[in-house]
Amino acid sequence: MLRWLTAGESHGPELTAVIDGLPAGVTVTARDLAEALARRRLGYGRGARMKFEQDEVSFTGGVRHGRTLGSPIAITIANTEWPKWQTVMSPEPVDPAAMAAAADVGASGELARNRPLTRPRPGHADLAGMQKYGFDEARPVLERASARETAARVALGRVAAAFLEQALGIRLVSHTVAIGGQEVSDDAPLPGPDDVAALDADPVRTLDADGSARMVAAIDAAKKDGDTLGGIVEVLAYGVPPGLGSHVHGDRRLDAQLAGALMGIQAIKGVEVGDGFRTAARRGSAAHDEIVREDGRIRRETNRSGGTEGGMSTGEVLRVRAAMKPISTVPRALKTIDVASGEEATAIHQRSDVCAVPAAGVVAEAMVALVLAQAALEKFGGDSVPEVSRNQATYLAAIPELMK
Amino acid sequence: MLRWLTAGESHGPELTAVIDGLPAGVTVTARDLAEALARRRLGYGRGARMKFEQDEVSFTGGVRHGRTLGSPIAITIANTEWPKWQTVMSPEPVDPAAMAAAADVGASGELARNRPLTRPRPGHADLAGMQKYGFDEARPVLERASARETAARVALGRVAAAFLEQALGIRLVSHTVAIGGQEVSDDAPLPGPDDVAALDADPVRTLDADGSARMVAAIDAAKKDGDTLGGIVEVLAYGVPPGLGSHVHGDRRLDAQLAGALMGIQAIKGVEVGDGFRTAARRGSAAHDEIVREDGRIRRETNRSGGTEGGMSTGEVLRVRAAMKPISTVPRALKTIDVASGEEATAIHQRSDVCAVPAAGVVAEAMVALVLAQAALEKFGGDSVPEVSRNQATYLAAIPELMK
Amino acid sequence: MLRWLTAGESHGPELTAVIDGLPAGVTVTARDLAEALARRRLGYGRGARMKFEQDEVSFTGGVRHGRTLGSPIAITIANTEWPKWQTVMSPEPVDPAAMAAAADVGASGELARNRPLTRPRPGHADLAGMQKYGFDEARPVLERASARETAARVALGRVAAAFLEQALGIRLVSHTVAIGGQEVSDDAPLPGPDDVAALDADPVRTLDADGSARMVAAIDAAKKDGDTLGGIVEVLAYGVPPGLGSHVHGDRRLDAQLAGALMGIQAIKGVEVGDGFRTAARRGSAAHDEIVREDGRIRRETNRSGGTEGGMSTGEVLRVRAAMKPISTVPRALKTIDVASGEEATAIHQRSDVCAVPAAGVVAEAMVALVLAQAALEKFGGDSVPEVSRNQATYLAAIPELMK
Amino acid sequence: MLRWLTAGESHGPELTAVIDGLPAGVTVTARDLAEALARRRLGYGRGARMKFEQDEVSFTGGVRHGRTLGSPIAITIANTEWPKWQTVMSPEPVDPAAMAAAADVGASGELARNRPLTRPRPGHADLAGMQKYGFDEARPVLERASARETAARVALGRVAAAFLEQALGIRLVSHTVAIGGQEVSDDAPLPGPDDVAALDADPVRTLDADGSARMVAAIDAAKKDGDTLGGIVEVLAYGVPPGLGSHVHGDRRLDAQLAGALMGIQAIKGVEVGDGFRTAARRGSAAHDEIVREDGRIRRETNRSGGTEGGMSTGEVLRVRAAMKPISTVPRALKTIDVASGEEATAIHQRSDVCAVPAAGVVAEAMVALVLAQAALEKFGGDSVPEVSRNQATYLAAIPELMK
Repeated sequence: MLRWLTAGESHGPELTAVIDGLPAGVTVTARDLAEALARRRLGYGRGARMKFEQDEVSFTGGVRHGRTLGSPIAITIANTEWPKWQTVMSPEPVDPAAMAAAADVGASGELARNRPLTRPRPGHADLAGMQKYGFDEARPVLERASARETAARVALGRVAAAFLEQALGIRLVSHTVAIGGQEVSDDAPLPGPDDVAALDADPVRTLDADGSARMVAAIDAAKKDGDTLGGIVEVLAYGVPPGLGSHVHGDRRLDAQLAGALMGIQAIKGVEVGDGFRTAARRGSAAHDEIVREDGRIRRETNRSGGTEGGMSTGEVLRVRAAMKPISTVPRALKTIDVASGEEATAIHQRSDVCAVPAAGVVAEAMVALVLAQAALEKFGGDSVPEVSRNQATYLAAIPELMK
Repeated sequence: MLRWLTAGESHGPELTAVIDGLPAGVTVTARDLAEALARRRLGYGRGARMKFEQDEVSFTGGVRHGRTLGSPIAITIANTEWPKWQTVMSPEPVDPAAMAAAADVGASGELARNRPLTRPRPGHADLAGMQKYGFDEARPVLERASARETAARVALGRVAAAFLEQALGIRLVSHTVAIGGQEVSDDAPLPGPDDVAALDADPVRTLDADGSARMVAAIDAAKKDGDTLGGIVEVLAYGVPPGLGSHVHGDRRLDAQLAGALMGIQAIKGVEVGDGFRTAARRGSAAHDEIVREDGRIRRETNRSGGTEGGMSTGEVLRVRAAMKPISTVPRALKTIDVASGEEATAIHQRSDVCAVPAAGVVAEAMVALVLAQAALEKFGGDSVPEVSRNQATYLAAIPELMK
Repeated sequence: MLRWLTAGESHGPELTAVIDGLPAGVTVTARDLAEALARRRLGYGRGARMKFEQDEVSFTGGVRHGRTLGSPIAITIANTEWPKWQTVMSPEPVDPAAMAAAADVGASGELARNRPLTRPRPGHADLAGMQKYGFDEARPVLERASARETAARVALGRVAAAFLEQALGIRLVSHTVAIGGQEVSDDAPLPGPDDVAALDADPVRTLDADGSARMVAAIDAAKKDGDTLGGIVEVLAYGVPPGLGSHVHGDRRLDAQLAGALMGIQAIKGVEVGDGFRTAARRGSAAHDEIVREDGRIRRETNRSGGTEGGMSTGEVLRVRAAMKPISTVPRALKTIDVASGEEATAIHQRSDVCAVPAAGVVAEAMVALVLAQAALEKFGGDSVPEVSRNQATYLAAIPELMK
Repeated sequence: MLRWLTAGESHGPELTAVIDGLPAGVTVTARDLAEALARRRLGYGRGARMKFEQDEVSFTGGVRHGRTLGSPIAITIANTEWPKWQTVMSPEPVDPAAMAAAADVGASGELARNRPLTRPRPGHADLAGMQKYGFDEARPVLERASARETAARVALGRVAAAFLEQALGIRLVSHTVAIGGQEVSDDAPLPGPDDVAALDADPVRTLDADGSARMVAAIDAAKKDGDTLGGIVEVLAYGVPPGLGSHVHGDRRLDAQLAGALMGIQAIKGVEVGDGFRTAARRGSAAHDEIVREDGRIRRETNRSGGTEGGMSTGEVLRVRAAMKPISTVPRALKTIDVASGEEATAIHQRSDVCAVPAAGVVAEAMVALVLAQAALEKFGGDSVPEVSRNQATYLAAIPELMK
């Protein structure tokens, strides 16, 4: 059983991530984490904040001399802006006078760090969070609901990805397939695991040059109009063996677990496995992946299913998509209510991005890595990299020759 | 904590469903279950099998005199065709001679009940299931992977729905929004909870007469061509209070839980909350739901979000969609391999439906009911209907007037 | 992940047990279950009820032709007395007149099946259950709290034991070590897995003839005095590999899982691993198991620890104990309050046993089997008996020669 | 659902604890944690190490201005000795030369920090951990298996205790009832929640002066003999409402959850609820708690059950015990094998305590707090302190007058 928790507020001292159940012997260093976190800041259309996030990341448990110990792995990601927030977000009680003095000099209106945020922003957790937890302002909600938290997931996902690659030969890649309605062309080739550097070098993380240009243009246009954009990302996993997940119970299905994990990312509103909604418009004769023998191995002529059948991985490339809504903090301010006064108001707009879709691909990749690691450990057991590897190898070897 | 398990094979003696954690005092009878199961057999395009499923359903635990006891609720759904299958699917060892004699007289080829199914069918769990569990034929896999299992979920969902309505005033409705690419019109009104009978009376479970006619025509055309269709269903929940689910952790998000549950249904390949993928193509200024005050209550001008923000219910109508792939058993047989011989083959085609989308809406409704019941119990606690009701009522009352 | 649920009331139509996550290929039949259930009725000091429990048990899911399918396994245990209870315990609403007529003819006072039980019995779930679930009488509580439910656990445990033996070579045995303060002698040999028949043949399930005689005498004396007895049972597991459970987190410790499972049995009030409380009175130099090499293998000179160190199995015999309180339904009636009238009363006394300790050993054995199966699947993964076996074998082979 | 994880190695940079699911509005500060951690260092018979543990503890998530936010709470406990260990326990790869130089100057034999620990110590996780995780020495195991980890639990338990007291009025107290076979007298009064300071002031944390003196003498004697001692601690919870836990399923029983949590503490080998093993030797007429009415309230004449019946809290004082084995690192060295050479050896003995029983009471208290918080949230739901309080109050008020 692999399980994880993240903690920490957006402007708190640090983010914390703990993952328990990963085998011993996975090679991973803080540099790996830092590089993964840097990938999360990629993408055309990000605002100034991304420059602030310098992500001082370190392992504080579960890793020794660059290898996991089998014990829970703890990661902390320091907030380099913490000095500016240490009063407003202090865990300890603060003097009212200190709080009053902690305003962001020059900030206007509610933007001051020390001001109660009483105008819930549409599209955010603000209003429901205040109602649920009994807060009279949104600061305690938005600090946790912020996408800053995904940094902790990306760090965890990096550890999971290291395990997947080292123990099982599974490699992941993510890319952007649409921004603001601009999609990559249908015949764009699927990126492979060796394309990660090329993808990361593209402003929107796609290999489709034409699509990239169109997406960049859409971002520019939205920015000019004081607006924001969403889009669609895809995650691919190569080297997944057949038989992760199971048909025997709904919640054991790999696709169910992937869907839950992806929809659990901030701002994601849709999830597809393989061709997803497009498959729903097809006829059965053109919707499945016929089974053939090729070079002595069973293969599929297509991969419409996204590499799962009956809730199990088939051994083909795993392919899932997530749809991200446009960033909710829209420069052209949205209507809201001030819950302190009951008056009509407009939602505040803090410094923000136009589009975070390229980064969402990196976050989605992390969640897929975590789900696959969980499913692989469920299937293969094992407490060390060699043990997990061995169990996969003997499993694959035991599949009858005519069924391989 | 609400949890459930289903068990039973498609042609086994019975399906079993157990749900643990439901409060005491929910009024529910076997007739309620039977009616829910009848709704699962609805829909234009279903094959002969649906007529066989007479679903003798009963409570065998957790309910006394028509009310739940707080103890685990057990439901059994007998297989009325069991006499024909009692040798082939006997839990107990059978005499080889009896097995040899158990063929379905008149069945051709692999269709005979007692024949090993060595030609895995594309789109089904067959091949991955055989590889994973070490079977040399697909019978042990398909018996459980079959959509017959969803009958158990519908029964469980019916109990959850009774709880939601009686304790919390939450009512659910599902409908079909597309079949084979034929969608309901964009301006079709959203069905309300009182429209269930009208929806169930429509051949494809939509209130949109034009859309219904187009979908029926699509089914007829597919049937004529020996083909199958998928589609999209939508589930709506009315009366959901704000604050189910949470923004504090990915897996606590209500939308994540809904996505996992819906994607865990057989043949579902995509899930959306609210406008989902369509939202990803919009600009931010047109993608969120502005907050206004109306008749002294906070309301939203739109419901693009599907009733969740920050992973929490907002108090607006909850709205989720699931995309179903076309039925995998296609009369126009798909290519496969016979894993006993290694030879090319075509997948068998047993009696089957052209389209099961209308029924999928009923199954999706059941899963949403289960997820909402789980989330409501997480939020409100409580071991009896009055206690849960009371906890919701005092929670709602405690929300400050200006935040309601 | 192995998980299970039981359902069903003591006088309901049947008990249901479902277990999900057991690998395919375990050989098990209804006869195995029936024999396990018969063992649960063993023991000197049982009342008349045990004769009624004829336990018509069958698999209704997850098993085909005597072998598990990898899908959830469902077991039903019919209540042979159901005809007498079908009105009083009907899941469906009943006519008040039928209910009024359903009294047990000749029964006195509250004993009549149709009478509300308003005098909560000390030592039972009655009072707290009524308060928690909002009942005005105890019938809905006691029907589920009854030890009858352990029949479902014994059936599940039998399946788990079959898995453990067939996949891993682990064999279990349970025996009684004390009844009513009469303990087996300190130097009584530990029973081995081949002693089960001999143990079951003893009136109190011990190999210690002298202890057996003393316990039987204690039961006779208690019976004569209208009293009841408790005692202590021990479960041993042979062939457990080192490394089940883990030191890395509290809830991953095998001893924690065993303690939770044993304390979760009705009437159990204490649990020990190895020498338990006795160890707490020793000095460290006499409390641990020194490590020596014997015949080329690492062994322990003693087994005070009960086969776990650091929350992991050590490879030595696993040994745990559970303390059962005396049966709460005491013929010499205990004081209570009638919650309908507020008056002082005495607790009713239905037909009952003097001592159920020998049977508790069988139940404890079942729970240990379930926990070990869970821990073994966590360690070894695997979806079929050969895969699990293989993973254990390669794990054991990979332990360095000097560490074996 | 309340859940938590701890991470961190004994000599790593820090311990991390994360707890998710605690309501908003609990008042708690780092000083509270520091005081709790100081209590964990109490007790006669502790070694020098306790002086080193200065426990720089802080909240790094989930708490703002001294109140919980409803988001996951993260706590870090810095290791003040980290500078001495930063090479040996570095998460990052280290230069072999640096490692070679990192020995503890003056340390003899295997005690040097940089030496592989190849002589597994009886009573520790060393050997099974090396076998399970594939290590060739014990350092990676013992770093996590060490009781240092319980500091993280105590911190978590302190937060849970603040919640219990502030939201529900539940208060906990723990004390020592035996050390090295020296027990407190049978008629020693049960400490109440206001006795914590007095208990903490006693060298072994008991109110029984005579027992205290005998235990201190036992510790002195053991120390003189180069030996170690275990003992028994008891945790009491005051103000627990009736109905936490449930009779409806084994793993929902409060006593099962308590037993699992207590047995999951390092070195605990036995657990009792109420009179536990002593009850098993009694007759039924003297083993239960008779129900009477006193001052208009239902009360029990005794509390043999420890405040649970049928797996539920009864409203009486909750009382559980845990048996701790003697410290495994015995100055009089135990026999072992050097797994590098295969030779007979003696287990190393690092600086250590003679007896850690008084501290174990503090750890047990923390685990009981966590379990009760979990059970209370399961029963009452709620996302803020006022909501949980309100739900408890209305629940208690709704119990019928004659059943209170």
